[in-house]
Amino acid sequence: MTALALLDELAAIGADPAGGWSRPAWGAGEQAAHDWFAAHARAMGLSVRQDAFGNSIARREGCENLPAIATGSHLDTVRGGGLYDGALGVVLGLAAAGRLPTGLRPLEVIAFRDEEGRFGPFTGSRAMTGDLAADALDRLRDADGVALRTAMADCGLAPATPQAAARDMSDLAAWVEVHIEQGPVLEAAGLPLGIVTAIAGQERFSLRFTGQAGHAGTVPMDQRADALQAAAGFALAFDALIRDAGGDARGTIGILRLEPNQANVIPREARLSLEIRDSDAARLARLAQETEALARTIAQDRRVTCQTRRLYSAAPVAMAAHLMAALEQAAHGRAMRLLSGANHDAGILGLHIPVAMLFVPSRGGISHTPDEHTDPGPIMAAADVLTATLARLIESPGP
Amino acid sequence: MTALALLDELAAIGADPAGGWSRPAWGAGEQAAHDWFAAHARAMGLSVRQDAFGNSIARREGCENLPAIATGSHLDTVRGGGLYDGALGVVLGLAAAGRLPTGLRPLEVIAFRDEEGRFGPFTGSRAMTGDLAADALDRLRDADGVALRTAMADCGLAPATPQAAARDMSDLAAWVEVHIEQGPVLEAAGLPLGIVTAIAGQERFSLRFTGQAGHAGTVPMDQRADALQAAAGFALAFDALIRDAGGDARGTIGILRLEPNQANVIPREARLSLEIRDSDAARLARLAQETEALARTIAQDRRVTCQTRRLYSAAPVAMAAHLMAALEQAAHGRAMRLLSGANHDAGILGLHIPVAMLFVPSRGGISHTPDEHTDPGPIMAAADVLTATLARLIESPGP
Repeated sequence: MTALALLDELAAIGADPAGGWSRPAWGAGEQAAHDWFAAHARAMGLSVRQDAFGNSIARREGCENLPAIATGSHLDTVRGGGLYDGALGVVLGLAAAGRLPTGLRPLEVIAFRDEEGRFGPFTGSRAMTGDLAADALDRLRDADGVALRTAMADCGLAPATPQAAARDMSDLAAWVEVHIEQGPVLEAAGLPLGIVTAIAGQERFSLRFTGQAGHAGTVPMDQRADALQAAAGFALAFDALIRDAGGDARGTIGILRLEPNQANVIPREARLSLEIRDSDAARLARLAQETEALARTIAQDRRVTCQTRRLYSAAPVAMAAHLMAALEQAAHGRAMRLLSGANHDAGILGLHIPVAMLFVPSRGGISHTPDEHTDPGPIMAAADVLTATLARLIESPGP
Repeated sequence: MTALALLDELAAIGADPAGGWSRPAWGAGEQAAHDWFAAHARAMGLSVRQDAFGNSIARREGCENLPAIATGSHLDTVRGGGLYDGALGVVLGLAAAGRLPTGLRPLEVIAFRDEEGRFGPFTGSRAMTGDLAADALDRLRDADGVALRTAMADCGLAPATPQAAARDMSDLAAWVEVHIEQGPVLEAAGLPLGIVTAIAGQERFSLRFTGQAGHAGTVPMDQRADALQAAAGFALAFDALIRDAGGDARGTIGILRLEPNQANVIPREARLSLEIRDSDAARLARLAQETEALARTIAQDRRVTCQTRRLYSAAPVAMAAHLMAALEQAAHGRAMRLLSGANHDAGILGLHIPVAMLFVPSRGGISHTPDEHTDPGPIMAAADVLTATLARLIESPGP
């Protein structure tokens, strides 16, 4: 079956009556998608197993006992998400496996669980690489308070610890993942394909500016300690810091909440959540430091206090040069290189083995909505490039 | 009884088990406070009536058929409010009436309903002055959706229209209201009394900046239309505009809400609520215009759209010079003049008759919380100044 025909079938699984697709990790929709995946892979003659976390691993052995070449992505979605995010990489992996002969090396198509982070970032692939903490099954809970262990039990999965899903990553020689860009760069450039150079590192912070509430009518301007004004000053300075840094640094304040958030009360408190992403580890570290310094300086100027907390840190993950080169050769000039601002399962695997990613354009740069769309043209181009790249990799005896 | 003893009694009415006092307008607590007020006024020999809105009017006739001198305030509170806001002016009015002999003019002590705006601004005093729209009883609803007419029925009040509560305002020669400052000015100045020069006019706006949502990792900085960045730029410029205007202009952005308000999504929309207050009508109008212009300019710079809506307009209300002079004379140098940034029942009555206000300090400048506090010293000083001023006014045959 072609990738487009497979995608069409998958569209029937987990469609949400409220619009789009809702296949939260370890829910019935995601499980049905994994069952569907297994059936197709078996029909192609691949062996299929689920690991202790429910990640599906379809495998065709090679002629020699060498580490495998792996491809795939994830089958879960956000609530009301689109058809392509994750699904496309799995479907293109299946389609490629269907077209490829047995090679020197084994070929694997892997569908990961919980890429969208129902239980935090990338619990599926982190379980496979052994990077999930021992207490994760009981500690990690979704937005409704359901424990990871409970959600997995609904799928008949009952590992004692996350280590039950860990595999020896030296059994894999490479991971090549196709994914939608989820950004506007390829569309703006008018190109069907993107070869990812790196997955951006991230620093996430929460900040809290605390001033003094007061009656909006009765407190003179020069006696105020307005938390919103501090937050506004910080937001502008942060934006300028990131823009001035150049390169591909990105900074976003996505959350801002005021207390008490009443029309006639001077805001006492402003809570912000921000993140910085960058492909350059040193610049990322510098920007994170300067962001904290900015917050302190502006709080002082505005006579409020400021607390900053680092929530999450991830180093940039460089893509493997030989895999990028292989994709580029197969792309025949239809591809540009670009940063992946979003993290992916490739970013988790890339901490252990050589990885690469191939992007296709997202119409309007959007994702995580029912309107997520990629044209058939780029999908077919990606199918060809992935198949050609995997064909070459499974025949390569080298490292 | 002294004002402090009366206040002590009133403290037993509408005390909230969760802290502070909760006497929402036309609720059981406010009604009990009005019953308590009527009983004390009658015991002092005043006649007491409730108008069609339930405003309590205690009256002692004068020796001549002249317009009355009136004092008082309101008995409702916000939920979990303090002991002094409104209550103090009513209690001092009662105490003064108890100390004053019959004068040339009639004396009234009025306790208004709903100063805190359960059903919108000042429905009690606006009903008395005839400024409430004909359909208000059915149109105005509280935060829980209860109609004004329904709430009033709980107190046995069933006016056909708000006009049933309107009185001929030429029957009143003056209104003198004692109130807590609800701001930090008197405390900072170390003075027990403030003579209000004007009640600030107000302009209230809602603003909406609409940009483009996007993935925080995938959209390059130069391709963003970030609604929060527009709102932050506007907030700083607005603050600077108000500060540069000088005088006693005050501007506050009390509400800011982002959509979708998620850590990894560039904000699509920022909704703000702001208000400007000023004692100078011309400057207030200019600031309102310039605020709208600022929003438009900044939206353009930030590649977002902006909608502004005027929610509410109120002109400044000047206090009557002869009443201010009378208060000042009685205060014997213990008072400073200051603007009232907050509106009061005096601001509603002041559209029809000469009014004045006497402020006492609010500890920490705070109100609308259980911690609201005014020391006994300033309360006794205000009691003396109010009594002396009323004594003089009820004996004055002039206009």
